[in-house]
Formats: sequence, structure tokens, C-alpha cells
Amino acid sequence: MAIDYKKELENAARNMIFVHDPDLLIKMIVRMVVNKANISHASFFLHNKEKQGYLLTVSKGALAKKLPLDLICIDKDDVLVRFFREHKNSFIFGREALVYQEAKAALVGNKVKQEAKQQLAQVLYQMELLKTVVCIPSFFRDELLGLLLLGEKNIGKKFVDEELDFFEALNSNVAMVIRNAQLFKQLEYELERKHQLFVRTTIALAAAIEAKDHYTHGHTTRVTNFSLEIAQKINQNSKKTFDNKFLENLHIASLLHDIGKIGVPEHILNKRSGLTIGERNRIKEHPMIGVNILKSIKELEFPMLGVKYHHERFDGLGYPEGLIGEQIPLLASIISVADSFDAMTTDRPYRPALVRDEAINEIKKLSGQQFCPRVADTFLELCQEGKI
Amino acid sequence: MAIDYKKELENAARNMIFVHDPDLLIKMIVRMVVNKANISHASFFLHNKEKQGYLLTVSKGALAKKLPLDLICIDKDDVLVRFFREHKNSFIFGREALVYQEAKAALVGNKVKQEAKQQLAQVLYQMELLKTVVCIPSFFRDELLGLLLLGEKNIGKKFVDEELDFFEALNSNVAMVIRNAQLFKQLEYELERKHQLFVRTTIALAAAIEAKDHYTHGHTTRVTNFSLEIAQKINQNSKKTFDNKFLENLHIASLLHDIGKIGVPEHILNKRSGLTIGERNRIKEHPMIGVNILKSIKELEFPMLGVKYHHERFDGLGYPEGLIGEQIPLLASIISVADSFDAMTTDRPYRPALVRDEAINEIKKLSGQQFCPRVADTFLELCQEGKI
Repeated sequence: MAIDYKKELENAARNMIFVHDPDLLIKMIVRMVVNKANISHASFFLHNKEKQGYLLTVSKGALAKKLPLDLICIDKDDVLVRFFREHKNSFIFGREALVYQEAKAALVGNKVKQEAKQQLAQVLYQMELLKTVVCIPSFFRDELLGLLLLGEKNIGKKFVDEELDFFEALNSNVAMVIRNAQLFKQLEYELERKHQLFVRTTIALAAAIEAKDHYTHGHTTRVTNFSLEIAQKINQNSKKTFDNKFLENLHIASLLHDIGKIGVPEHILNKRSGLTIGERNRIKEHPMIGVNILKSIKELEFPMLGVKYHHERFDGLGYPEGLIGEQIPLLASIISVADSFDAMTTDRPYRPALVRDEAINEIKKLSGQQFCPRVADTFLELCQEGKI
Repeated sequence: MAIDYKKELENAARNMIFVHDPDLLIKMIVRMVVNKANISHASFFLHNKEKQGYLLTVSKGALAKKLPLDLICIDKDDVLVRFFREHKNSFIFGREALVYQEAKAALVGNKVKQEAKQQLAQVLYQMELLKTVVCIPSFFRDELLGLLLLGEKNIGKKFVDEELDFFEALNSNVAMVIRNAQLFKQLEYELERKHQLFVRTTIALAAAIEAKDHYTHGHTTRVTNFSLEIAQKINQNSKKTFDNKFLENLHIASLLHDIGKIGVPEHILNKRSGLTIGERNRIKEHPMIGVNILKSIKELEFPMLGVKYHHERFDGLGYPEGLIGEQIPLLASIISVADSFDAMTTDRPYRPALVRDEAINEIKKLSGQQFCPRVADTFLELCQEGKI
């Protein structure tokens, strides 16, 4: 049955636009070309800046069967690449694609200008080495983004014009979509970098602030890890209670939970002997100092709940607002357990550390009083599994 | 001359993919449709989530001539929208587009099923109100993203099949590309949000750290503003010495320049009487403390130069490394002038503030000694213009 190439092309274009991974995209195209046109093999060489050449990205069939793909690279000054770069606006055989048989006939029949002969002979020899009978360039504006190389048809016939038209149109779509995909990838990469920059800077500054409080070295990092472990365990137990956004907010909240300590004088934080009531009250201000520091940042609205409420208690006896039970945001309840456990298991100015089992028993004992039972239970589960 | 619709479509698709602003894209399409097919007017209604309907986004010609575009909205439950939603997989007239003349003929000639008659009559009445003779839906999968409404042809002929095919294909491309554009816009929006989150959190934490040093309220913000003013002025004077990346790095560097002060004890920072040599040396450690806090963050490599070297002097007598002249990164030289000017013009524990003119004279006097002359000159220019 004849193939409706116009329809095929429309469908292909429609699907391509949503693939934002250039490699996957090229794989789709090559597979399609090989299947639709029933040819022995097809390969795509994609421009690679670092390698200064065109890397074999996908190959269906003969070529590169036993070699790792990334090892095969056509140099940017290779005769084949040069040929397409130099002739892009003046197709010497009336079309973008270079067809071996036609070019050979022209060469043998003396139909090629004298000065172009040597180059064309080299190009054809290169095509023989690569076992390809049709080469189609992918241009984006003036830039040669890639080369599609086709092997012979399985049924031994010549490629007809309609097929070559189809391959050319497809390959020019490929160029556009590759560019589009590259833009997407770049944006996603920048987004990830920016996120990392934010997280790392926050970690660095939180650690610096924490360093004021000599007794809490590494506290922020440990609380963050415990909190994320607890949230992931709750997710496991309950089929995704939290989405990624929640986990990200919990991450940020844990990093920032003690940020308000910067507003508490060093001599109070580091006091060795018992604190006066006045000093204790100064320390209790740190959640609200944290809120004041961050309140202008709209994006931190949700993480701020952790900063504000991580010293609330399930029985309502905590601070700053004395929230009770389910009034306390789950995010804050998680940080509360993580924070308390870490505080218990490290030395403090006013008392030495508890051993791990003692601290675990405390959490168990205080579940439903200080701690949200759901969070405390999950925490105890993690302890039993040896994950904390 | 007849139009090669296949070619037109390919070109259109090729251009559309690079337009990442849906509104601009729709404008392109509508303009093209009106020009190529020579019709009286065309309008595109784009789905809008908040408005729960389809907003008139672009209109060439009669419709909405005198009304602000955004006021015209077809409700999501409007009869025209419902018609396309309900019939998307069963074109009652053999194609996606709804052609007024055909539908009217079918209705009058009793060729429409009894139960569909009333709806179709309402749809046609709606088309009359909108002065449109052809409606083409843009579907992305099952989602009706938009409606293209065409007026009559200027030369009074009927639309032929080839034209309708072209419009349908174009409009289905539009749907894909709108989705693509929306995805892009969303990514760009997220990137901007993430950047803002980073900048605002850094500002908040820097301000909190600054608050330790009671005498420097607002210092970081002012130094940041001065630094950016200086860099922009240098750019004006020298045809873009700095790119946006530099300005962004300078911004971050200014925000973080004194971050290391968190490692200097409060009682030294806030000391009212003269500092001992030992105490002075502790303060001089703050650039390197800052570097230590941030050094693990690869993305801050360049801004870190400002943190490290903002107390270097042009004559080599600064700290921490005693760099001389051009050895000092320009970014640090800029912060140095901005920082010194702000320090001079605010009260310090050990001396009252200078008045503005005295401080400006100091900068002038110390140009070439403490300050990089290029930066100092630019700063003085800004002062003369009253911008600082």
C-alpha cells in the first residue's frame, strides 16, 4: 500500500513538538524512516559543540552495530560536512538530499564542473565507507545541526522523488524541533541550577547562623534529613499524602527553621549555666524573629509555617501561639519531632546528650502530648528499621 | 495566482515553533489567514482558565473594532463551544470546520437529525451575531484550546475545500504550538520565580546578619544599589562593558559582601570605644569567613570575588591578599567604592557620619590610592548628576 506522506509528515510534526529530549526525538525519527521506507539502515549524526563534530546519535541497522555510539564522530571539517556547508544554498543536484547514484552518474558522465570534481569524488568515497546511499542535511537557518544517512532499500529499488521529498521535509522539521528541544533542555537546566543555587545558599547561610550557637553544629542538616525521611515514610504508608511541592517546602522549612536564632544574643545561646526566665523567653522568640526575617518573601509563605510553628505542642502547651492537635500544620509537626530528637541526642550547654534509645523512648512517651502521634509513630517506625 | 497551501503550511509551522508567546503567535496566524485567503476579518478566541471561557485574543477586521479585546469572552458553556466539544469526534458535516452556508442548507433541507436541530439553529444564530461564516476549532487532544472565526471572503466567493483543509491544518498546528508556547512561558515564569526566591531569601538573610551589627542598618541594600548604579554608568560610558550576567553577579556579590561578619563576635562589631589591634584583625577576617561560608557553592564562584576582595586597595595596602591595581577584580573595586561611601556617610561605633560632600571629597582624594580610578570617576560622575 502506498504511504500518504503528507499525512505522515503532519502526524510526525505533531508528535515531535512534545518531545523535549533531542536524543529521544532523533530515535523516533530514525525508527520512523526505517520502518516507513523499509530501508536497511539509517543513522543520525548530531552536531556536538564540545567534540567539534557530528556524533552518531542513533543508528538502526548495519552501521555502528558493535561500537558504542558516542565513539563515532564525523569531524566538522570532514569532506561530507564541508560539502553540505558549502552547497547549502545551491543544491548541485536540484535538492537538499545527496543521492549517491545520481552524484556518481553525474561524475562519471562529466556533468560536474571541473573544480567540484575532486571534492565530489571524496564525498562519494566517504559515503561508500559509511555504507550510505542518501545523505540529508538538517539545517537550522545557516547552521548544520545534523546529518541523516540512509542505507539501501530492502527491496532493492531506487528512492523515488516523493520519498526524498518526505525525508527532506522530515529532516527540516527535525532541525526545528531539535532546536526547540535544546531550548527547553536549557531552560530546564537553568531552572535546576537556580534551584540548587537557592538551596545551597540557604544551606550556607543557615549553617553560618547556626555556627553562632556553638552547640548545634550540623543540627540544621540533620533536622532536614530526618524531616524528609519522615515525610517520605508517611508517603509510603499512605499512597502519596504529599506531592513534590510539599517535600520541597518541607526541605526549605527545615533549612530555615532556626533562622530566627540570629536575633538571640550569642551569650544567651551559649550560656553554660541555667537560663533565667527572661533568657528563656528571649530564646522562645526565635520562631517569630524567623517569621519577621522571611515574611516579605511570598514564595516562602508555606515553608514559613514550619519556621513559625516548630515549637508548638500537640497538647497546646507550645509556643508561639499554643495551637492544639490538628491546628498545627503537618509540616511543622514533622520538623518538631526531627528537631527534638536531634536536640536530645546532642550535647547542650545545660545538659549532656541522651543515648539514642533513651531519646527514642522520649519521643514514644511524648507522642500525643508534645508530638503529633501520626508523625511520632512514623518516626518510631523509621527508628525500628534502622533508618534513623 | 493560486496559493501553494502545502508550502505555506510548512513555512508557517517552521516559523510558529520559535514563537514562545501565545498571543504573538495567534496574531501571526490570524494575519496570515486574512492576507492569504483575502477575507474580511478573522478572530481568535483563546481558552482562558480564570475567565472560564474563550477570550478574544486577536481580531483583524470588523469584530471588536472599538472594544478592548479582553472584554469579549465566549463562555465555556456557550452554545458554540458546546457544539464543538460535543461533536469533536463525529464531524456532522464531514470536517472539523463548521461552515455556515453548508450547515444552514442542511438545516433548511431537513438533513439534520431532529434532536440536533435546535442546537444547530442556536449555533448558526450565534455565528450571525459574530458575523462569521466559518468556525474552526483548535483541539489539543481532547481539550478545546481555541476557536478561529472567519468573516466572508472579500471577493464574495465560497471557501473551497483546499482552503478549508489549509485552515484546519493550520489551526491544529496552532493548538500544538500554543501548548508548546504555554509550556515555555511556564518554564520561564518558574525560572523567574526561582530567581526571585533566591534573591529575596539572600536579601532577608543578609539583612538578618547585618542586624547583628547595630550600626549598619540598611547598609547592604544601599551598597547594592550604589554598586548597580556604578556598573550601569560604566556601561553607558563604554558601550556595554558588562553583560547581564555580570550585573546579576554584582547584585549577588553586593548582597553577600559582608556575610562573613556573622563570624565576628557581636561585642567586637558593636564596640563603642577604640578597637585593639587584635580586635581589628578579627574584623579583617570577615572577607575570608564569607568565602568559607560560600565556597562550596559553585554558582557563586564569580560573586565570591566581591566577597573576598572588597577590602583590597588600588595601592596594594588592602586585605586579605594585598592585590594591586588591575589585579583587583572590577566587581570588587565597584563594591569597595560603594561600601566605603556608605560607611563614611553613616554613624559608626567609633565616629559620627561625614556629611555627603565630605565623603565625596574623600572618594576623590583616595582615587588611585584606595580606589580604582575608573570606578571612582564613574562614582563622582553619578554624584554630580545627583544620582547618588
